[in-house]
Formats: sequence, C-alpha cells, structure tokens
Amino acid sequence: MRRVSFAGNECPIARAADAVGDVWSLLILRDIGDGYTRFDELQSDLGIAPNTLTRRLAALIEAGLLERRRYQDNPPRDRYMLTDRGRAFQPVVLALFAASTAGTAPTDRTLVLVDRQTGAQVDPVLVDRVTGRPVDELDLAFAAGPAASPRLRGRFRQLAEQAG
Amino acid sequence: MRRVSFAGNECPIARAADAVGDVWSLLILRDIGDGYTRFDELQSDLGIAPNTLTRRLAALIEAGLLERRRYQDNPPRDRYMLTDRGRAFQPVVLALFAASTAGTAPTDRTLVLVDRQTGAQVDPVLVDRVTGRPVDELDLAFAAGPAASPRLRGRFRQLAEQAG
Repeated sequence: MRRVSFAGNECPIARAADAVGDVWSLLILRDIGDGYTRFDELQSDLGIAPNTLTRRLAALIEAGLLERRRYQDNPPRDRYMLTDRGRAFQPVVLALFAASTAGTAPTDRTLVLVDRQTGAQVDPVLVDRVTGRPVDELDLAFAAGPAASPRLRGRFRQLAEQAG
Repeated sequence: MRRVSFAGNECPIARAADAVGDVWSLLILRDIGDGYTRFDELQSDLGIAPNTLTRRLAALIEAGLLERRRYQDNPPRDRYMLTDRGRAFQPVVLALFAASTAGTAPTDRTLVLVDRQTGAQVDPVLVDRVTGRPVDELDLAFAAGPAASPRLRGRFRQLAEQAG
C-alpha cells in the first residue's frame, strides 16, 4: 500500500490528495453520492474485495469525509454517510466527471449529471466565485498564503525567479 | 501497486480516477502547473523516489495528460508539459485545493490561488455552466447518458427505485 503520508503536509492539495487520492476512495465517494450507502451495496457495485473496502472506508472515516451510522442492531448493520467535509469533496468527483467527458460528444456520453428538481442536464465548470470567470480563461498561479512557512515561501520565490 | 485498471471502464469518473487517482500523479499535475517541468525539479520538489517518478510520469503520458519534450540532446534532457487533456484535468487539482481550504480561515491559509494578470485572489467554485448556480446549492444526480450500456441503465434504474 501507500508508503508516504501527506496528511500533515503544509500544502492543502497534498492533504486533500492524501484523503481521496486513490481510485477506490474516489469511486466510494461517487457511489455514496449516487445513493449506495451500505457495505454490501458498495461491495457489489464496485466489485471490490471486502478487505480493501473495509480499509478504504476506515481511511475515509479517519480523514473525516465519511461517518458510520448504525441502522440495525441485530445483526449490526451500518450506513456510510458523507460528513460536511465529505460533501465539500464532492466537487472533486464532479471535476473528474467534467475532465473526463470534456472531449466526448453529448450523444456519446455514458453518464450525465442532472438537476433533480428540474431534470435539466448540468455542465459543471469551475469559475472564480467573485468574477464568475471560468478558471480555464484565467492565467492562474498558486502562491504562498499568509500562514505559509519560510520553506513554502522560498519555493514560490524560486518559482517566480525561474519564470521571470 | 494498483491491481485493477479502470482505464476501459464505462464510467468517465472511473476512467478519470484511473488516470490521476493516486497521490503522486495529483502532486505531479500540481507541480507541472506550478512550473516544475524537468525530472530533477519534480524529484527535488516532491521528494519522490526516482523510479516512482519515472513510473508515474510514464502513466500520465500513457493516459494522454503529459507529453515529453526534449530541450537538450547531449546529454538528453526532457521537459514534461501538460497536453490539452492534461489542462482539462487542472480543475481536479483546483477542486482538491478548494475542498481542502474550505474550512480554513483566510489568515490561516498556507496556499492561495491568484490571477497573474490582476494579482487578485481567486476562489474556485464549481457552478452549472448554463445557470451559473453553485453545484452545492443544487440537488444533483448522475444518470445514464445516451451511450450508456444496458448494465449502466439498470444500475441507475435500481438506484431510482431504491430512492423512490
């Protein structure tokens, strides 16, 4: 399994990748969003080995993205639900969907995203919350934030010198 | 290493997760977006074992997200650049950033995203391209698209029956 943990990394992208950066975790988030919330449902839909599913669910709970809720005591049966933090990660699944379907003609799509209220298809695009401009029209760069360490500041200073 | 490939899976999310669904691949995409394009730069910034980096770069090239460009012949030296498809995956990195920083006060952020032209901070949010509404305000569901197989249609029919 994975050897290096980025859970305590200063970079929020690395921490997020640590939480969901494997295929099974991303597919579990997809499935729970779809409405498969029981162990047996997830196992059957994903075709995943039970011990692998147990491990990935435990890691997602540990990362604060899922919580286990008992819905039956005898025999004990649980549902796996998204936490608020887990819901904050749903855009990652939608971004994977958007990236993957970007080059596919509408008639060739196997999967679409719909608004349950209106039935209309939804085409998710990442924009700047303030200006509303799509990020792919912008020239964006990450930079050190107010709480960055000297090391991280040095990384971006070096990148700026290299670019300039 | 990973045992199951989803590269040929009918679900575009599974295919996308197959292409970038590991921590190193996501961090390589982050780093190349930042401007680290040479093997030695990536290796040094990521603190990754050379053979692991070689394997991840080869997988990203195979998935069509990166291309290798020779910039020096003797000794041979390459740069790794995003393809159009690789650029289409950059929102996944931005979505990881947004998910990870969502609960962090602005003054506590180690990393920020800025518009190089204006210097303004950018807060990436996923919206519906048509209505402009943030996806987290919508009640969304995936559904079978026009090119879905009978198996995938059955999956969503079963989910609808279960929910209804």
